Amino acid sequence: MTNTIFDFIGDNSGEWEVTSMSTLKGNPIEMVSHLTKVPQSDLIQSETGIWSFKGIISNLRYTEKEEKDKLTAIQEDLGRKSSTLGAFIPIRKSETWWSLAQDERRKIMESKSEHTQTGMKYLPAIARKLFHSRDIGEAFDFLTWFEYAPTDAEAFDELLHTLRKTEEWSYVNREINIRLKKV
Amino acid sequence: MTNTIFDFIGDNSGEWEVTSMSTLKGNPIEMVSHLTKVPQSDLIQSETGIWSFKGIISNLRYTEKEEKDKLTAIQEDLGRKSSTLGAFIPIRKSETWWSLAQDERRKIMESKSEHTQTGMKYLPAIARKLFHSRDIGEAFDFLTWFEYAPTDAEAFDELLHTLRKTEEWSYVNREINIRLKKV
Repeated sequence: MTNTIFDFIGDNSGEWEVTSMSTLKGNPIEMVSHLTKVPQSDLIQSETGIWSFKGIISNLRYTEKEEKDKLTAIQEDLGRKSSTLGAFIPIRKSETWWSLAQDERRKIMESKSEHTQTGMKYLPAIARKLFHSRDIGEAFDFLTWFEYAPTDAEAFDELLHTLRKTEEWSYVNREINIRLKKV
Repeated sequence: MTNTIFDFIGDNSGEWEVTSMSTLKGNPIEMVSHLTKVPQSDLIQSETGIWSFKGIISNLRYTEKEEKDKLTAIQEDLGRKSSTLGAFIPIRKSETWWSLAQDERRKIMESKSEHTQTGMKYLPAIARKLFHSRDIGEAFDFLTWFEYAPTDAEAFDELLHTLRKTEEWSYVNREINIRLKKV
């Protein structure tokens, strides 16, 4: 079975060097100098590092067939050698968001906020992966992870800027922006 | 925080007596005489019982606003005194199902199989709860749980019969039917 459970461990050493850490909304988390993404074989709580967040890879919960086919055709996997920069952005959405029905959430994400369309524009340059945390009782709902080459750093900032202006983002009530450089 | 993580423990004693256990599809699980549903404060693996399955309560992933409003208005919670009978039905769906996009899965569940509409007909008599297991690497994708009064036992069989004939159910490749009686 492929690994679907990952720990993101903030510590004094690790795979990625933290180049900046800023709290955009809600409570901050402790500053760390390094971050490591570790596959877990089970859900046993790991107590390593200064802090550690757990996320699970799931099926796509909003993406429709046409979008899914396009994504599959152009996206690239994590771990490319040229992707020496990264970002780890844990996010939490409000209770109002989670009390919405599936069609209401989809409408806000796509018809109004064009989330998938926006992300698609930056493929394959910005590789990304979504880890779910809400259902396992973690502090954040999602752990988002991005990898890109230094030449695409500006495009990445543009992508985030576009997403943060959307109606979808008005439901985000905690967001930490952690930028990374491969050690 | 409300408990969202539960262990379902099969053993020689427990809260519910197992009145029958049958494998409808896929590999069977070991026979047990009793079952207990235990809220867990975290995801630490519990090693109690003859077997144990873990499930998490999540947001509704297919239900649209109109359906959600109707459900909220008529459904009743688990734990009613009159509900002395129950059923625990762990289910697994095929990889084909999981590779479908959100809109394709929704179409099969609702337009073609009328899953929500069918369940709605038996409310509030048959109380039910869905526990998600797939994302946490468990043997089943879903653990479904039902509680009802003896006078509704026939209606419950009818509900299952209707669901099992649907196109959605053609994607189910493992299903164990465990019937329960409150001790």
